[in-house]
Amino acid sequence: MAEPSSGHKPSSSGQPSAPSGYPYHAPPSSYGYSSPYTWGAGGGGAAGCYFPPGTAPEIIHSFQAVDRDRSGFIDEYELQAALSSGYQRFSLRTIRLLMFLFQNPNNPSKMGPAEFSALWNCIGQWRGIFDRFDRDRSGKIDSMELREALLSLGYAVPPSVIQVLISNYADGKTGKGALNFDNFVECGMIVKGLTEKFKEKDTRYAGSATLTYDTFMSMVIPFIVP
Amino acid sequence: MAEPSSGHKPSSSGQPSAPSGYPYHAPPSSYGYSSPYTWGAGGGGAAGCYFPPGTAPEIIHSFQAVDRDRSGFIDEYELQAALSSGYQRFSLRTIRLLMFLFQNPNNPSKMGPAEFSALWNCIGQWRGIFDRFDRDRSGKIDSMELREALLSLGYAVPPSVIQVLISNYADGKTGKGALNFDNFVECGMIVKGLTEKFKEKDTRYAGSATLTYDTFMSMVIPFIVP
Repeated sequence: MAEPSSGHKPSSSGQPSAPSGYPYHAPPSSYGYSSPYTWGAGGGGAAGCYFPPGTAPEIIHSFQAVDRDRSGFIDEYELQAALSSGYQRFSLRTIRLLMFLFQNPNNPSKMGPAEFSALWNCIGQWRGIFDRFDRDRSGKIDSMELREALLSLGYAVPPSVIQVLISNYADGKTGKGALNFDNFVECGMIVKGLTEKFKEKDTRYAGSATLTYDTFMSMVIPFIVP
Repeated sequence: MAEPSSGHKPSSSGQPSAPSGYPYHAPPSSYGYSSPYTWGAGGGGAAGCYFPPGTAPEIIHSFQAVDRDRSGFIDEYELQAALSSGYQRFSLRTIRLLMFLFQNPNNPSKMGPAEFSALWNCIGQWRGIFDRFDRDRSGKIDSMELREALLSLGYAVPPSVIQVLISNYADGKTGKGALNFDNFVECGMIVKGLTEKFKEKDTRYAGSATLTYDTFMSMVIPFIVP
């Protein structure tokens, strides 16, 4: 991966503009999950659970259908059920990753309306990208298509990493790796989450970061869940 | 974590001596997995499968009992069966991690006698440490005991990382994290593997390393297996 030829200052939006070929690009504006907390439900009480203005009715409906006790928060099983109504039944592993990546820092074990809305929209965007790269409509994408799909999300992942990622989903018949949408969301969220963590430490936006052992372990271990 | 007060040169054994309180210590000599390849089975042919001199008969027997086609290599299911004879039936997730961490770079998808022998001895050592810290003989260790056990293996893992590690194994009744031996091997191998990867990049043995994005992703992704 080429190093940037000169320093890049963050733009006024807080999102630095990246030179082409840079490992991580400014994501599309509809993509971010860094801002849902401005609309968050606050410290975790039942009161004050707001959806962002303009939230699509189907998102509100899907959330409320599973939040039976009207607490304003859902757990991982409820999230699995809620996403099933709009998308599909994701594996619990993917659901846990989504809970972790879209968590409200004030209430990490539960998901409120703002986080759910951000997640729903993100998955909608990823569904569009998956369908775009699943050119033969097989319901699966291969390693080349995964790389292109991640690039279009702003992540320039080295081919060796793509190979490791996709080898976990090898087809029993052909031995070739291929991802269905659940797998794609899982892989993509791992890449997204690790990249965001790395970017936080790459304060100069230089494509590299100096990490202590403790920082490295703290960044990585949460992604390794059984 | 305290930084070392002065530079430390690697000792003649290739293993640097570490100041106390340093994040990773020189492991006990019986522990390493970096050297089995000196006794490795070579490029992967059926000929030339040697156990290191002095290998305990039970290790040879356990290996040969599952290597039914006498190829000199075993796959993950055979490894699971082989370890069952001496220890217990480990989860396939733990087995995959063991295959990855003890792999022969020349034949990463299979395990030969040298790697198996190193792995068997390592698990034996870890069994001893587990039993030492499982003071009430409950068959489980808690977060404090995990931290002490990892310390005794040479890994000074931050308490926050220990919490994340152990939270994945929360007891349904008490809500408190506790690890059985399978979980302990899984957690410990993740810590061991990530630490070894980090140490490779911390060439000055300074407790920190500068990583490019590509390097970071390549180091971490192999540990995140479904």
